[in-house]
Amino acid sequence: MPTSENGSTPVYREIADELREQIRSGRLTDGDRLPGENTLMERHGIARATARQALSELINEGLASPVRGSGVYVRLFRPVRRHGSRRLSRDIWGRGGSIWQTQERDYEVDRLLVDEAVPEAHVARALGLAEEEAVLRRSRRYLVDGRPVQNAVSYLAPAVAAAAPRVREHDTGPGGVYARLAEVGLAPVRFTEEIRVRMPTPGEREDLSLPPGTPVVDVARTALADGNRPVEFGEITMDGSAYVLQYDFEA
Amino acid sequence: MPTSENGSTPVYREIADELREQIRSGRLTDGDRLPGENTLMERHGIARATARQALSELINEGLASPVRGSGVYVRLFRPVRRHGSRRLSRDIWGRGGSIWQTQERDYEVDRLLVDEAVPEAHVARALGLAEEEAVLRRSRRYLVDGRPVQNAVSYLAPAVAAAAPRVREHDTGPGGVYARLAEVGLAPVRFTEEIRVRMPTPGEREDLSLPPGTPVVDVARTALADGNRPVEFGEITMDGSAYVLQYDFEA
Repeated sequence: MPTSENGSTPVYREIADELREQIRSGRLTDGDRLPGENTLMERHGIARATARQALSELINEGLASPVRGSGVYVRLFRPVRRHGSRRLSRDIWGRGGSIWQTQERDYEVDRLLVDEAVPEAHVARALGLAEEEAVLRRSRRYLVDGRPVQNAVSYLAPAVAAAAPRVREHDTGPGGVYARLAEVGLAPVRFTEEIRVRMPTPGEREDLSLPPGTPVVDVARTALADGNRPVEFGEITMDGSAYVLQYDFEA
Repeated sequence: MPTSENGSTPVYREIADELREQIRSGRLTDGDRLPGENTLMERHGIARATARQALSELINEGLASPVRGSGVYVRLFRPVRRHGSRRLSRDIWGRGGSIWQTQERDYEVDRLLVDEAVPEAHVARALGLAEEEAVLRRSRRYLVDGRPVQNAVSYLAPAVAAAAPRVREHDTGPGGVYARLAEVGLAPVRFTEEIRVRMPTPGEREDLSLPPGTPVVDVARTALADGNRPVEFGEITMDGSAYVLQYDFEA
């Protein structure tokens, strides 16, 4: 493996470091074409395999994306700031707003599906239900600026769905599911979110149009009403490159 | 590309799905050897390239790791549960405890470095300092059960470090930096954490011994004292496969 003059760092990595620095500093920005293999070969006097390896580093880190027959492009996206506590505040849905309203971004929902299903054991546990009990399931995908950014599935216990029948409809009305729960005395008063990260499955890569080198974030959310009663359990899978998650809390 | 009998799913993906399900269900667990290429070829009547592709899927998802000359092994690790709000509670460091104490796991710190440095612009901004102003920097790596799980760097404004000189020492004493700040009236009363995920750089892959297909989580934390005064800014880079991050908050 060719190494640089100081003998310690492989040349492909030095070139990757230099290109990464140009992206981080903003000299190369979203949609810019990176220098091609031929340019890198000439500029640095290296073999094609070395040039390709340098570009692969950036693709694997999710900073660039290959476009077939055209080249490798910088791939950035102004991330959606998801404010854990503020967005789920009663102030928002209590006023009839959407929990997406705080994002100040254009968003769409598609692939909305409302049905009943026997959920996996961890969902039943989160909702305090016996296994094999069917729950109301609401699935949908969110897009921001036309780009798919998350798949989300909410589960509601049968007694909760029966108390607030409008949560079974596609359009749950102003303030959404939480506002409907509040109307029947089941307002969420507390939330727990658990965050995990991992690489996507092939199906998720397709659903969220993820290029190589893009991890996903799983958020598992439990909404609790008075008396610690779980009223909703949500599983959200996000394009990891599309989000900044913010949480504020007291010491 | 060979597809299954129903013609829609490539065979390598069906095999990967089956192995993933065995891992998720616990039938295959940490350290177990996955069936090798030869076994998969015989069992499913497929070519070596197809078998290799199935195994690559699991490696790329971070669920398995190749061991040279031996095979592909399931790679699991009981994740560290990092409880955003509870672990930074004044109850912990006010009593002289470590913010790691809530983990109930064996941990070590190594590569501790305390120095002064002119930080990057975003750090100066977070601490409300002019650019080019030097700050106190504390860097270290954490290991859990002998495995490196995070690199962490804390920055303290010069006035803060001057007020509580023990924060310059390697051993900051019971309750750590926050307890020392509290003694001089600079106790953190509020925290903001921002979470981002991405693939690691080559240097991070080495520092944290990350196998292929393992994303990292960046946590940027600001500790605020009374009057919204920023007293510490921390940047933590975690092995994404080693953590569950939990946040609890009111509606």
